[in-house]
Amino acid sequence: MLALSSHPFPLLSPLFSSAFLRFPSSSTRPSSAIASMARPPTDFPYLPPADRDLMLSLLTTVEDRLGSALLPSNVSPDVLRFQNSNGSAHGSVNIRSGSQSSPVDFVLQSWLNCKTPGGGEINIASLFAFLNSSTDAPHLLFELIHGSPTSIVLIMDLIPRRDLVLHPDYLDKFYQQTDLDGPRRHLDSLPQVSPYYSSSLFIRSVLSPTSIAVSVDFGKEGEASAMEEMVAEHIGGAAKKIVEVWLEKCAGVRVLGVAEGERLELERRDELIKRKAVEIDLAANLPRMFGPEVAERVVAEIQMAFRV
Amino acid sequence: MLALSSHPFPLLSPLFSSAFLRFPSSSTRPSSAIASMARPPTDFPYLPPADRDLMLSLLTTVEDRLGSALLPSNVSPDVLRFQNSNGSAHGSVNIRSGSQSSPVDFVLQSWLNCKTPGGGEINIASLFAFLNSSTDAPHLLFELIHGSPTSIVLIMDLIPRRDLVLHPDYLDKFYQQTDLDGPRRHLDSLPQVSPYYSSSLFIRSVLSPTSIAVSVDFGKEGEASAMEEMVAEHIGGAAKKIVEVWLEKCAGVRVLGVAEGERLELERRDELIKRKAVEIDLAANLPRMFGPEVAERVVAEIQMAFRV
Repeated sequence: MLALSSHPFPLLSPLFSSAFLRFPSSSTRPSSAIASMARPPTDFPYLPPADRDLMLSLLTTVEDRLGSALLPSNVSPDVLRFQNSNGSAHGSVNIRSGSQSSPVDFVLQSWLNCKTPGGGEINIASLFAFLNSSTDAPHLLFELIHGSPTSIVLIMDLIPRRDLVLHPDYLDKFYQQTDLDGPRRHLDSLPQVSPYYSSSLFIRSVLSPTSIAVSVDFGKEGEASAMEEMVAEHIGGAAKKIVEVWLEKCAGVRVLGVAEGERLELERRDELIKRKAVEIDLAANLPRMFGPEVAERVVAEIQMAFRV
Repeated sequence: MLALSSHPFPLLSPLFSSAFLRFPSSSTRPSSAIASMARPPTDFPYLPPADRDLMLSLLTTVEDRLGSALLPSNVSPDVLRFQNSNGSAHGSVNIRSGSQSSPVDFVLQSWLNCKTPGGGEINIASLFAFLNSSTDAPHLLFELIHGSPTSIVLIMDLIPRRDLVLHPDYLDKFYQQTDLDGPRRHLDSLPQVSPYYSSSLFIRSVLSPTSIAVSVDFGKEGEASAMEEMVAEHIGGAAKKIVEVWLEKCAGVRVLGVAEGERLELERRDELIKRKAVEIDLAANLPRMFGPEVAERVVAEIQMAFRV
C-alpha cells in the first residue's frame, strides 16, 4: 500500500465533504459581502506547479462557461483563508452559488496544505460543482491528494443522482454515450496507476461505474518531474474531458423540469450524501488538521448551511 | 490486458445472465418432471480439479443449509445438458426454485466448457442464489471464468437490492457489519490479482462496493498448480466467507415482511436486471458458443421464464 494510505483522511479527504459547504444567499455578514466583491483567491499557493496549473485551467473553464449562472462568492474571510494555531496547516474554501434560474447549486474550489511529522507535506486540491433539484444530471467531483512529490491519490467522477440499476437510460445518457469510461481506461493502462478504494463503503457507493479513483505512485526513487508530467498530460487530459462532459451534458443543458415528487427524492438523496459526509468525514477529520477551534467553527458553519 | 479479455463474453459471462433462468413451477413438461426427481448433475466434468472441488463445496453448503426451502429441479434434460453441433462446446444449467414459504427465489448452478480456436479451452462455473421480494436482502453471485490454465476472471458479490445511497442502513447491515470488504482486500493484496472491469456499465452498476471482480494471472510461464492453489486457498476462502454471510444474514433470516409498495419496487429493480441481462448478454453471446439453434431455444425459454 502507498504511504498515502496512512494520511489522516480515511475517506476521499475532508474536502470531499467540504464540497457540500454552501452558505445561504440570505447571509448577512457585512465583512463577507465586501470580500465577495473581489475575485476570490485562486492561486492555490502551496500546490506543486503542475497541480496548480491544472486546477486553474479547470476552474477557469468552469467559471467562464457558467458565466452569469454563478453568483459572486459570499464566503467569509476566515473560510477563504484559514490555518491551524502553529501555522503548519493552511487551507482555503471558496464557493459560488448558482443563480436562481440556473441548474447549478454551487461551485466549490479549495486547497489544503498540511505539514506531516516526517518533514513532508500533503497538498489537496479540489473542484466540486453540484446541481440543484431542477435537474437530475450528475454532480462534478475532482480531487487531487498529493501525499508526496511522487505519489498522489486522484478522484474524478460525475456523481450519479439516480439509482443506476433502476434508471438504465440515465446510465446510457450520461456515462455510456459520453464515453466516460475512456479516460478511466486510459489512466488504468499506465503502469504507475492502481485502484484506490475509499475506506468508506458509502463513499464508494456514491461514485459512478466510470469513476476514476486511483493511486499514482512513482516510488521513493521516482522523480518529481515524472509526476508533474503525469499530472499535466494524463490526469489533465482526463480531467478536461470529464469537465467538458459535465459542462456540455449536465450543467449546460436547458432544464426540462423535474416532477415535484422526483425533486423531493433528489433532494433527499443529496441530503443523505451531505449528512453522511459531515458525519463520517468532516467532523472526524478537520480537528486533526486544524485543531478543535478552527474545525468546530468550520463544521458548525457547514452543518448550518446543510441544515443537518 | 489479459488474453481472457478477448474471450467471447463481453460481460461477466453468458452465465451471469443465465443466473436468472427460472422455469415457472406450473411447468407441464413430463420429461422435465421425471428428470427433476433425480439429483441433478453436480459433477462439473470439464472443470479443473480445484475449481470443481470449490464449486461442489459451495453448492453442498448452500443446498444443505437451505434444505427443504429448495424444491426439486424442474429443468428439462436439454438444459441440464447441452452442446453445440460439433461437440466443441458443452454446458449445463440447473435450477432449484425456493419453496413458497421461503425467501429464496432460486438457486442456479452451471458450467460451460468451450474449446477455443487456438487449441485451448474456457471453463465457466457459476453459482447464483436469488431471493424473492418477500425480503430486500442481497442476491448471491459467484462466477469463475477459467480462460487458460494460468488465468481466470473471478466475480463474487452480494448484489444489493436497494440504492445504497438512499439506504445507508442497508449498506451498514449487509456490507459493513459483515466485513465483506475483508475478502476483497485480501485478494487485492495478492500480486497476481488485478481489477476486472466488465465492459457493461450496467453490470458494474449492479455490483456492490465490496464486490470482487478480478483477473488472476500467473502469466504464460506460470504453473497450473499455482493457479490450483490460488483457487483452493485464496479464492476458496473468500468464496466460503461470502456464501456464509449470504446464508446467515440474507437467506437464513426470518422474513420480517416487506411493504407492498416496496415489493413492487424490488420486483421492478430485479426485472430490470433480468431484462438487461437477457438483452445485452445472453441474446448476444449464446449463439457464438452453441450455434443459433441451441441458443435460440435456451434464450426463448429464459425469456418465457422471465416474462421479458
